[in-house]
Amino acid sequence: MNYAEEIGKILVNKGWRISTTESCTGGLLSSKLTDISGSSAYITLNLVTYANEAKAKMLNVTLDKEGAVSENCSFQMAKGLYNLTGSEICVSTTGIAGPTGGTVDKPVGLMYSTIYTKDKSKTYKIQVNSKFSRIEIKESFANIVLQNIYDFLISE
Amino acid sequence: MNYAEEIGKILVNKGWRISTTESCTGGLLSSKLTDISGSSAYITLNLVTYANEAKAKMLNVTLDKEGAVSENCSFQMAKGLYNLTGSEICVSTTGIAGPTGGTVDKPVGLMYSTIYTKDKSKTYKIQVNSKFSRIEIKESFANIVLQNIYDFLISE
Repeated sequence: MNYAEEIGKILVNKGWRISTTESCTGGLLSSKLTDISGSSAYITLNLVTYANEAKAKMLNVTLDKEGAVSENCSFQMAKGLYNLTGSEICVSTTGIAGPTGGTVDKPVGLMYSTIYTKDKSKTYKIQVNSKFSRIEIKESFANIVLQNIYDFLISE
Repeated sequence: MNYAEEIGKILVNKGWRISTTESCTGGLLSSKLTDISGSSAYITLNLVTYANEAKAKMLNVTLDKEGAVSENCSFQMAKGLYNLTGSEICVSTTGIAGPTGGTVDKPVGLMYSTIYTKDKSKTYKIQVNSKFSRIEIKESFANIVLQNIYDFLISE
């Protein structure tokens, strides 16, 4: 199934817009969503907030001791994006695409991702194979998030 | 040559950051730049300003009769991004990825892209094969912009 295409159909039916704010996926999620012809009907603004300063400035994220790769940061990113854009469904990603930057507690291939709507939000903790290449990890992350968005929307 | 990697090396050497604001490429340019390990050293914030409202709100773009796919809009996007981020090199894309939305004057496959720095800016008009698929056009656009950034940087 082409999840980006199915997401698009659902959004058009609902009259909803989607916005994304990406850290570890670096724009790949946005790119996959905009691969769909007609996606300009439901996409207005997406962000790649790679640095902590960008997360703070654009989305009012305040990091705690857990840092940027955390459930708390993921949630704040998605909520901040909702406040900024007003898009009916807002999605964040923050994680470690590698090959450097991993620790025992937070290995390469770990990602948090939040889907935020007015009535419901859900934060996912995802671990993909830490031996994947950086590009494979970004690809896996983005595809998992697309599937999560689809599952979230059809369970609405 | 891997242009994203070469661009990264040059930016690290110069101590510069890069920011992008994408319309037609939809995040693919940002994704290619973040495919490079260590790119968080020079990437802080990228935008996908897909809708005209997003271009106005985030970048203070005022459209004239030429509309969003124009030299003027491309320049304003890059300049607005420079004002927003302070990144030493800012890059915009605006065009028609198709398969719909083309006209006689502005066919599918037309893109404007601006590279903006404190001292110099350059706007490129690019036409790729209008018979390409949407995904092929995005890919061509992003690769051409990466090559332009590289050429711009080495001519500094």
